[in-house]
Amino acid sequence: MTALTGNMLIAGEPVFGAEAEVRALDPAANAELEPAYGHGGEAEVRRACEAAAAAFAAYRGTTAEERARFLERIADNIEELGDALIERAHAESGLPAGRLTGERARTTGQLRLFAEVVREGSWIGARVDPALPDRTPLPRADIRQRKVPLGPVAVFGASNFPLAFSVAGGDTAAALAAGCPVVVKGHDAHLGTSELVGRAITRAVADSGLPAGTFSLLFGPGPGLGTALVTDPRIQAVGFTGSRAGGLALVRAAAARPQPIPVYAEMSSINPVFLLPGALAERGARLGTEFAGSLTLGSGQFCTNPGLVIAADGHGLDEFLDAAAAAVEQAAPTTMLTPGIAGSYAAGVDELSAHATVLARGPESDAPNACRAALLATDAAGFTAGPQLHQEVFGACSLVIRCRDAAEVRRVAESVEGQLTATVHATEADHAEAAALLGVLELRAGRVLFNGWPTGVEVGHAMVHGGPFPSTSDSRTTSVGTLAIERFLRPVAYQDVPPALLPSALADGNPDGLWRRVDGELGRH
Amino acid sequence: MTALTGNMLIAGEPVFGAEAEVRALDPAANAELEPAYGHGGEAEVRRACEAAAAAFAAYRGTTAEERARFLERIADNIEELGDALIERAHAESGLPAGRLTGERARTTGQLRLFAEVVREGSWIGARVDPALPDRTPLPRADIRQRKVPLGPVAVFGASNFPLAFSVAGGDTAAALAAGCPVVVKGHDAHLGTSELVGRAITRAVADSGLPAGTFSLLFGPGPGLGTALVTDPRIQAVGFTGSRAGGLALVRAAAARPQPIPVYAEMSSINPVFLLPGALAERGARLGTEFAGSLTLGSGQFCTNPGLVIAADGHGLDEFLDAAAAAVEQAAPTTMLTPGIAGSYAAGVDELSAHATVLARGPESDAPNACRAALLATDAAGFTAGPQLHQEVFGACSLVIRCRDAAEVRRVAESVEGQLTATVHATEADHAEAAALLGVLELRAGRVLFNGWPTGVEVGHAMVHGGPFPSTSDSRTTSVGTLAIERFLRPVAYQDVPPALLPSALADGNPDGLWRRVDGELGRH
Repeated sequence: MTALTGNMLIAGEPVFGAEAEVRALDPAANAELEPAYGHGGEAEVRRACEAAAAAFAAYRGTTAEERARFLERIADNIEELGDALIERAHAESGLPAGRLTGERARTTGQLRLFAEVVREGSWIGARVDPALPDRTPLPRADIRQRKVPLGPVAVFGASNFPLAFSVAGGDTAAALAAGCPVVVKGHDAHLGTSELVGRAITRAVADSGLPAGTFSLLFGPGPGLGTALVTDPRIQAVGFTGSRAGGLALVRAAAARPQPIPVYAEMSSINPVFLLPGALAERGARLGTEFAGSLTLGSGQFCTNPGLVIAADGHGLDEFLDAAAAAVEQAAPTTMLTPGIAGSYAAGVDELSAHATVLARGPESDAPNACRAALLATDAAGFTAGPQLHQEVFGACSLVIRCRDAAEVRRVAESVEGQLTATVHATEADHAEAAALLGVLELRAGRVLFNGWPTGVEVGHAMVHGGPFPSTSDSRTTSVGTLAIERFLRPVAYQDVPPALLPSALADGNPDGLWRRVDGELGRH
Repeated sequence: MTALTGNMLIAGEPVFGAEAEVRALDPAANAELEPAYGHGGEAEVRRACEAAAAAFAAYRGTTAEERARFLERIADNIEELGDALIERAHAESGLPAGRLTGERARTTGQLRLFAEVVREGSWIGARVDPALPDRTPLPRADIRQRKVPLGPVAVFGASNFPLAFSVAGGDTAAALAAGCPVVVKGHDAHLGTSELVGRAITRAVADSGLPAGTFSLLFGPGPGLGTALVTDPRIQAVGFTGSRAGGLALVRAAAARPQPIPVYAEMSSINPVFLLPGALAERGARLGTEFAGSLTLGSGQFCTNPGLVIAADGHGLDEFLDAAAAAVEQAAPTTMLTPGIAGSYAAGVDELSAHATVLARGPESDAPNACRAALLATDAAGFTAGPQLHQEVFGACSLVIRCRDAAEVRRVAESVEGQLTATVHATEADHAEAAALLGVLELRAGRVLFNGWPTGVEVGHAMVHGGPFPSTSDSRTTSVGTLAIERFLRPVAYQDVPPALLPSALADGNPDGLWRRVDGELGRH
């Protein structure tokens, strides 16, 4: 590995931004990290977007095999970065090396999974309705359908997953798989990690013989460079993971364009956990310990952190609370990602504490940017009356809602906003209540899980990491898992297009061997 | 059939709105039609939306067979209305009875097609990733995915298809198929037609044993009742076909809600037609006559009306223009849908005439609300310089862009806004140029067709009636054809949900016999 340079990467060219000089910070030491990075501005946005638009025709014209190999090459190149990547990501994020090693495996794994998806080809959505020249009263034309990529996509790196939701993260993998060039705005919290991964992608672009504009990496402030990126006329969709305020700003900017575009913003979620009486009676104390483990994992810096626990008073709840409080009080303080996040966390816990009872806090710490876990409680009336209690506090903070009975539990379930996840702990004795709750929760969350914890998002075919507003800006999609490719595609119908001009996916005889819907019938025909 | 009453239908109850009294108009005679209808207001919106929300759980809980039979029953009930429906629709719209009979067949046909779609079950998007308890380093949970309906949907009836895009039109059929209750705002231009069809649906709801709130029909002004409907917190999606201004107003209202919701607005399109040299040389005059037929059909009141023709000067273009002009000059004036539309059409043609050369006008007419067809021409420079020339003029008006050569044709193609359709007329000799054009047009239109005319939208599995902005507000979907069901669904993941609580679509052993993706592999398993 060559040394870090501080450069952005615009269509393969290193460019040092002239707008401002910034450095990443080691949050464990509050110490700046070399080298300096240059923030770009509107000129660099324009250059990257022009290159992406120029690359689009050739990139979307690649075969499935070419595009799949490109994704695999990015994964290989990331692995080749070796320990240097983990070390830099650790220094910039404060996240432990073990966690980052796992996150790297997830990142390369999802690139390879999307390579399989591209090869399998169902994402093309091929449909063929053959002509019916003898139909009365009117003949039917030959009509075929496939999906085409939207165009250049802007991706915003997230602070909390410097690998899996950043430069080569899920949004980038899905957009590249769909055939869209990508312009990433790297997150200032992990500039060096971003540069390393950006170089890995840039090398894969060159080695795959793709147009250089297929990928660019920019650095700059969200309100400046970020807004310029979202409002550039060549950008056709946006992927974002971050705060509610940041996401809504992008949604507004995209909607105000002369040509509005979709924004997939994954924003805020408090991920309610419902503890039903049977489960509490059977394993209240164990649930308390497990819950605290999920709560404090990675300083609670997960979109799916369990920020809300709902249970009816009764046998087992006190055991749960005692065990959870004990575990929280013993949870070693861990470094948060940035001073800004640590400050917001502390302020958020203070705000919650003014409206709920503090049950337990993690140990105090003199270490910089340390997260003191927090467990609070209130009753259903307090929760309903306090809009502050519905807001996400990003970090290891959770609020327990003590309800009088099952009916009150259900009313709380009906009052929560849209969520990424909702969790139910239940035994067979709880099934009647659990079934009723499932019917409520599946309309409010992207993922409903039983007898587990919401942290840890499997990257697979069936995963949904999404959900109704405000957990995301678009509940019809997911940002994790193979379905994510659909965010960057749209259907086109081809009517009576001469066989010589039809895309091979729609050609007679199905030369690509795709699953296609012919006259509505699915088959490999 | 019993007499028209002037009532709205709120969850099965006839309600006479108290906000204003309005009557439909026979545009051929400029004569008001009895009876008076009462416009509703916010109270009626609230009542309809509360009923829809209350109906949602039971309605989405129906089996596929129950829901399919309900859709078929609506179709049966519409047919049972017999000639009375056609006669009233003719009186209210000025459209010929033959056209309306065809439109009724399309309306009942698409309800029955969606019944098949519901039974086939692929819309559920079932995916199963079985647990891998022995996987290292971490076991995999059991994760399954299906799509669930969004919730109550607001549908706005369109003026130009009083049956197929109105009370029981494509949006209603797709939303009901998806499991969403529907609240329709009927169009004031065809109040009696709306009442008749609304009663047919209401009867089907009752006879199917569904909750009354599954369907409501309201009347009222767009800015008042329409906005109240879109901003009601229970409404979760909106279907609209109409003007750009009207669609954008709904998009803005939906985006400003505390919880933003998707709006599927199909707005404006000028549907470019490209005439390549081989086709012009072979059949220029015939193309001109055919084009004029497509242009003047139904007074040009189609979203897919060919409002723009692009060709390079050369052999055959003059023959095309002469034939088209002759046909336009002889096109009998036909009645437009409303005085408002007729007035806007006349003003739009005047505005275009100030920026382009008038080649031909249809005969003058003293009949009320008559449409005089219009054919205009300009050159590529004029088109590029005149933003007015890119606007839709709703009616039988089209603009020919005379280009110097193929390169200029392609530049014009690259300059058009998003379109519902783009058409190419080409012979084999044109294929090189047609291929290049296809690559441009498939990124700008929802449907690309060859050697035909864009009017006439087949309702099938492969159809796309949609396209990039401003033709619609959401290019990722279609408002015609079976894919339209996806607009009203979102995916949910079920993680480790006990088998007893899983929806049958996701159960082990595939009891519903669905196409499912198991570990990424598609099959009936």
